[in-house]
Amino acid sequence: MEAILRHRLTKRCKIPRNVPKLGWEQAPRRSSSGSSSGCCRNERASILKRTMAKGEEVSNKQIILRDYVSGFPKESDMALKTSTMRLKVPEGSKGVLVKNLYLSCDPYMRSRMRKPGALSYIDSFTPGSAIIGYGVAKVLDSGHPDFKEGDLIWGMTGWEEYSLIPETEALFKIHYTDVPLSYYTGILGMPGVTAYVGFYEICSPKKGEYVFISAASGAVGQLVGQFAKLMGCYVVGSAGTNEKVDLLKNKFGFDEAFNYKEENNLDAALKRYFPEGIDIYFENVGGKMLDAVLLNMRLHGRIAVCGMISQYNLDQLEGVHNLFSLISKRIRMEGFIIFEYYHLYPKFLDLVWQYIKEGKIVYVEDKAEGLESGPAALIGLYTGSNVGKQVVVVARE
Amino acid sequence: MEAILRHRLTKRCKIPRNVPKLGWEQAPRRSSSGSSSGCCRNERASILKRTMAKGEEVSNKQIILRDYVSGFPKESDMALKTSTMRLKVPEGSKGVLVKNLYLSCDPYMRSRMRKPGALSYIDSFTPGSAIIGYGVAKVLDSGHPDFKEGDLIWGMTGWEEYSLIPETEALFKIHYTDVPLSYYTGILGMPGVTAYVGFYEICSPKKGEYVFISAASGAVGQLVGQFAKLMGCYVVGSAGTNEKVDLLKNKFGFDEAFNYKEENNLDAALKRYFPEGIDIYFENVGGKMLDAVLLNMRLHGRIAVCGMISQYNLDQLEGVHNLFSLISKRIRMEGFIIFEYYHLYPKFLDLVWQYIKEGKIVYVEDKAEGLESGPAALIGLYTGSNVGKQVVVVARE
Repeated sequence: MEAILRHRLTKRCKIPRNVPKLGWEQAPRRSSSGSSSGCCRNERASILKRTMAKGEEVSNKQIILRDYVSGFPKESDMALKTSTMRLKVPEGSKGVLVKNLYLSCDPYMRSRMRKPGALSYIDSFTPGSAIIGYGVAKVLDSGHPDFKEGDLIWGMTGWEEYSLIPETEALFKIHYTDVPLSYYTGILGMPGVTAYVGFYEICSPKKGEYVFISAASGAVGQLVGQFAKLMGCYVVGSAGTNEKVDLLKNKFGFDEAFNYKEENNLDAALKRYFPEGIDIYFENVGGKMLDAVLLNMRLHGRIAVCGMISQYNLDQLEGVHNLFSLISKRIRMEGFIIFEYYHLYPKFLDLVWQYIKEGKIVYVEDKAEGLESGPAALIGLYTGSNVGKQVVVVARE
Repeated sequence: MEAILRHRLTKRCKIPRNVPKLGWEQAPRRSSSGSSSGCCRNERASILKRTMAKGEEVSNKQIILRDYVSGFPKESDMALKTSTMRLKVPEGSKGVLVKNLYLSCDPYMRSRMRKPGALSYIDSFTPGSAIIGYGVAKVLDSGHPDFKEGDLIWGMTGWEEYSLIPETEALFKIHYTDVPLSYYTGILGMPGVTAYVGFYEICSPKKGEYVFISAASGAVGQLVGQFAKLMGCYVVGSAGTNEKVDLLKNKFGFDEAFNYKEENNLDAALKRYFPEGIDIYFENVGGKMLDAVLLNMRLHGRIAVCGMISQYNLDQLEGVHNLFSLISKRIRMEGFIIFEYYHLYPKFLDLVWQYIKEGKIVYVEDKAEGLESGPAALIGLYTGSNVGKQVVVVARE
């Protein structure tokens, strides 16, 4: 991480700036009917070959949000649209023009599909415009002195083949390329640093403590569990299929794991795995699981509230009844959002990259091929159909 | 506070010892029928006169819990009972024999009336034995070198005229007697140090912040509000009668106050008083108020969870729906119990005693006369019939 980038990263406790408006929110120069039929394979290959021709106007497939979503999102809430994009940063712009390689499907994106409201911490998507999310991309043209053609970056980009990113403050240059580039949508990107901050900064973990992680096989959960094991904690995870439970125990090295869908009584399940209670709960799901966890926390327990995916598609959120435990067990429960902690990214990156190289940490991705597969992949997060970190492969280079 | 006492006080983050078993939990030597009829005034005066006769066996009125309580407690859940007590510490005991002067009615006592269960942080009362609570008392006999006849103390004692307290670790000697002794059940006792710790230690307050306090005219709330005003915060309190609202605004100097029973929409009420949101919520009530507060917290807000009195008499606790705010607003919500912070008592005492002497802090008590009035006074907490700190006067000296 270069100094010039680092000093611009948002510090904790500062009110974060809004996510910058990106080029793809401007009206497309030409658009298709919005149908979901894509171009044929040959045509696509031909476009890819031509991307190096700076300044050329090319076809640019995008996944747009049709309209704000309430209830459970459907594939048809999104659509494939084809615009054009000139592969050059406009005169005077300090932005970058990138070719998107890997796009990240993250649970928080559900809140950006919602009509703007008080509870949301991030701007809603603009209906009719491309979805915005974390991704890995290659710089094709740059108006900024810190970026040059050929640089690899990760950060907020568009769900489209090419993006003009007018402000580069929220972009990270990729230096370690001896790992799969897609890792920068997950273990070495936003979910990775989320796991790192949530566990080390919010949970205040100590060796030997009892750690429970919900949605444990996801991008964040799998890493939290491995951090906790490396610290010498007892670690249990919950997930929604037996395949994921198997992954947790046999791939990620959790001490125990269970399929919450097969448990009639979550309180009883937690008591089975934590007869002495839970010191640390890494909260990814909310609702009934949180209620059961509250009954099983130990004195001075800590709950890092990272996400509540079980609640994202409900119009009426579930009530949590056992908050008196916060008093009786003197629990600290703390929510956090990663964009206030990116100043810790360089420290995180060096640690986790090293862990990966040494084989101390493993990582499982679920790759959907092609931009067209994006809507189904994103929606799959909320039914739990992904196994490991869900990535959309737009292009491999 | 003497050094020998101070070093024994429970430190934060240590698992606290159990509240010591007290003498009144032993079988009484003689008991009445358990009816609520007390002795006549002359007889009582006669007993009081005789208390100085060390070693004498005297009649000892007690308020006992008849049986565990579910739902809303009633006066008839308690009973007046008359035992006898020898006014001397047993041979070899390191305890003290005290005459109780003032007894404290505190919301947490409801949980001690409940059948022992997982969620409680403190032992239940023993049915048939005297209720236990904070009080102010005078030492009549002592087996401990740190206490002598005539010393005034506050701490855990029995709801009875005389108590044998076998362990003195949880007792505080009273040194400042230029304030009403009853203050040591409130502003200079457990509720006072609760307000101090909750506000200064848990809420991490800063000058100019927006502070909301529920049950604000109670023993803890009135002091939290005054601490916050002294720090230069904007302070709003809620209470359940217009008389209390008037007290908050005109006696305790809150900026604003409202009667929550007259508000159809707590969210709207909070938005009226906090158009820019709440930085600090001092939580005394739980339930619907907490849910409304969560919708009105500011970024990086803090919630000190001190009590949830609205929930104590419910068999099924209310669900809290807006916990996603913990993430979207990056809120820290933390429960605490005062017995882990008594090491801060000396610092607190010097500060607040000084504030009282300087007239910077005022205090309102609601005194019920006579041990017999205890059950009604205690139950009154849960209907909000007390105005200010509820004290039971057993004897004035």
